[in-house]
Amino acid sequence: MEGEHSNMMLPNKQVVFKNYVEGYPKESDFELRSSMISCQIPQRSKGLFVKNLYLGCDPYMRHRMSAHKSKDVALLVSFQPGSVIIGLGVAKVIKSANADFEEGDYIWGMTGWEDYSLILNPDGLFKIKYTDVPLSYYAGILGMPGLAAYIGFNNVCSAKQGDIVYVSSAAGGVGQLVGQFAKMKGCYVVGSASTDEKVNLLKSELGFDDAFNYKEGSDFAGALKRHFPKGIDVYFENVGGSMLDEVLLHMNLYGRIAVSGMISQYNLKKPDGICNLFCLISKRLRMEGFSELDSRHKVPEYLEFAIQLIRENKLVFVEDIAEGLENAASAFVGIYHGRNVGKQIIQVSTD
Amino acid sequence: MEGEHSNMMLPNKQVVFKNYVEGYPKESDFELRSSMISCQIPQRSKGLFVKNLYLGCDPYMRHRMSAHKSKDVALLVSFQPGSVIIGLGVAKVIKSANADFEEGDYIWGMTGWEDYSLILNPDGLFKIKYTDVPLSYYAGILGMPGLAAYIGFNNVCSAKQGDIVYVSSAAGGVGQLVGQFAKMKGCYVVGSASTDEKVNLLKSELGFDDAFNYKEGSDFAGALKRHFPKGIDVYFENVGGSMLDEVLLHMNLYGRIAVSGMISQYNLKKPDGICNLFCLISKRLRMEGFSELDSRHKVPEYLEFAIQLIRENKLVFVEDIAEGLENAASAFVGIYHGRNVGKQIIQVSTD
Repeated sequence: MEGEHSNMMLPNKQVVFKNYVEGYPKESDFELRSSMISCQIPQRSKGLFVKNLYLGCDPYMRHRMSAHKSKDVALLVSFQPGSVIIGLGVAKVIKSANADFEEGDYIWGMTGWEDYSLILNPDGLFKIKYTDVPLSYYAGILGMPGLAAYIGFNNVCSAKQGDIVYVSSAAGGVGQLVGQFAKMKGCYVVGSASTDEKVNLLKSELGFDDAFNYKEGSDFAGALKRHFPKGIDVYFENVGGSMLDEVLLHMNLYGRIAVSGMISQYNLKKPDGICNLFCLISKRLRMEGFSELDSRHKVPEYLEFAIQLIRENKLVFVEDIAEGLENAASAFVGIYHGRNVGKQIIQVSTD
Repeated sequence: MEGEHSNMMLPNKQVVFKNYVEGYPKESDFELRSSMISCQIPQRSKGLFVKNLYLGCDPYMRHRMSAHKSKDVALLVSFQPGSVIIGLGVAKVIKSANADFEEGDYIWGMTGWEDYSLILNPDGLFKIKYTDVPLSYYAGILGMPGLAAYIGFNNVCSAKQGDIVYVSSAAGGVGQLVGQFAKMKGCYVVGSASTDEKVNLLKSELGFDDAFNYKEGSDFAGALKRHFPKGIDVYFENVGGSMLDEVLLHMNLYGRIAVSGMISQYNLKKPDGICNLFCLISKRLRMEGFSELDSRHKVPEYLEFAIQLIRENKLVFVEDIAEGLENAASAFVGIYHGRNVGKQIIQVSTD
């Protein structure tokens, strides 16, 4: 490999961020560019040259497409117009100037939406240890979405056996895992999703006790009443906005709301106003945001936990795989319209 | 006493709730009624006949003046039009049919806004043990407001030395104590209030490091920037609404918001919409409502803690005492306009 690639220029397809977005992202906000990339790693760098295999379409990425100055969370810092999209993905090491990685290793972490990436600082990358599962899993169930579900459910929800758990965006990468973790804990789990197909998936494949299409009819309050006749003890929040506002009214005393995402809000100029926060007092609710970024040290623990369950078929994961960088933009845009069934992944190459 | 009062009818001034209120309560929503009350305790009741001394004007009471069905919190159940106002107060036992209380005991707990009350179920009442402090304190610093500050600060804020703490409605019955508890913990404490007089009180009497008049000028965001150049670690929430929305933007990573009250919202038909909840995720905030009602078992612990500090002048309490049931309505109405300086109390009688 070393000899084969060193100093070589390789054709490199890239998905480039065109300019700051307002409202929903459109395919035209991305440009597919053909260029060449040198596989030379700069001297004195401890970088890697990798071939990208799978890229995750993660809802948070929309924040990076707005012009703003976020100082609190690196993952929310705006993309530079004209630069390649960066996100969580799975790649294969082609060349390494880093003692922790070797040619041929598979890694996951932040990489570019392109055929090949030069990663100058591989500090945040993880080497993939188990390859007896689909490699794409490291952009989903075994990557950050999996960790988010694990951390969010275990550290924030304080769920106990018998609790009634509501998961929104339940067929998504995080939601489908939260539902399964909650079932393992002995909870009664209800999920909502945006199509009947996903609702069926939740009930037939993912082990949810109940599920509903929140877009069916206009009476979301009525749906909550029907599906939660005894109220909600734990709400795992992926949606935000008016859904959150209504859920607050259906929470039980001492309920907990783990705030993982608010996908309904990311494309709005001004977020929806939430009017029912007095429920926090009247019902003594705890509402807590979290980020799996704070728990990267838990990756090994989570990995051992999850890989075992996956091998035993006790934990399943539904992916929606778009093939080729040509389809990256439409796949990404689709997640904000609920077009994906399961975790949206872009397959750049299989190896 | 027994002989003196048994079967006797006594003249009894009462503050009666006229009808459900929309918007701000007005003095005309109350009626001062002169009636007679029998000091006879019904047979088989374990009740008390008490003389009311001090009544607390507590912001939550506004909820009871609206027509609604609250099932979660007894204290939020609507008053019946035509019935006497019920609230937390201090009283003296005139007659007792209960083994736990004797004639002459002082008690605090739920009582009526009237000269005398027949309390059929004294289960929730506390006998007053220490009378070397003003008895009115049991409607404030040594009663539920004190417990709210203690529980809210200690159990919800997770404050540590050096934390930057913001207390809104800081000159109120709860806020002034939270500020002092936070100082004892070694925090940097800033309070806001609605007049310069109260701001001075916070700085000169109540030991706040800094304080500001949030009604001065229209630039609340600018005020937060000036008074919290390093952001806010802990927000003790008494106000809600647009204040909360702005505070969210000024919270630091891993900040905590203890939600004790939302006085700005109680008179609105539709509460303000809070738009900045995404900060819960981006800053990993915890926002938690609580009620001192859940911690009544902590009353003895809190009492021993506070009484000692009061005796040593290490904990002070500012009261705003209105004299006479004639002034009850205006005192109560005043708290929603910030007219009280310190905890608003109604003195019915001194003994």
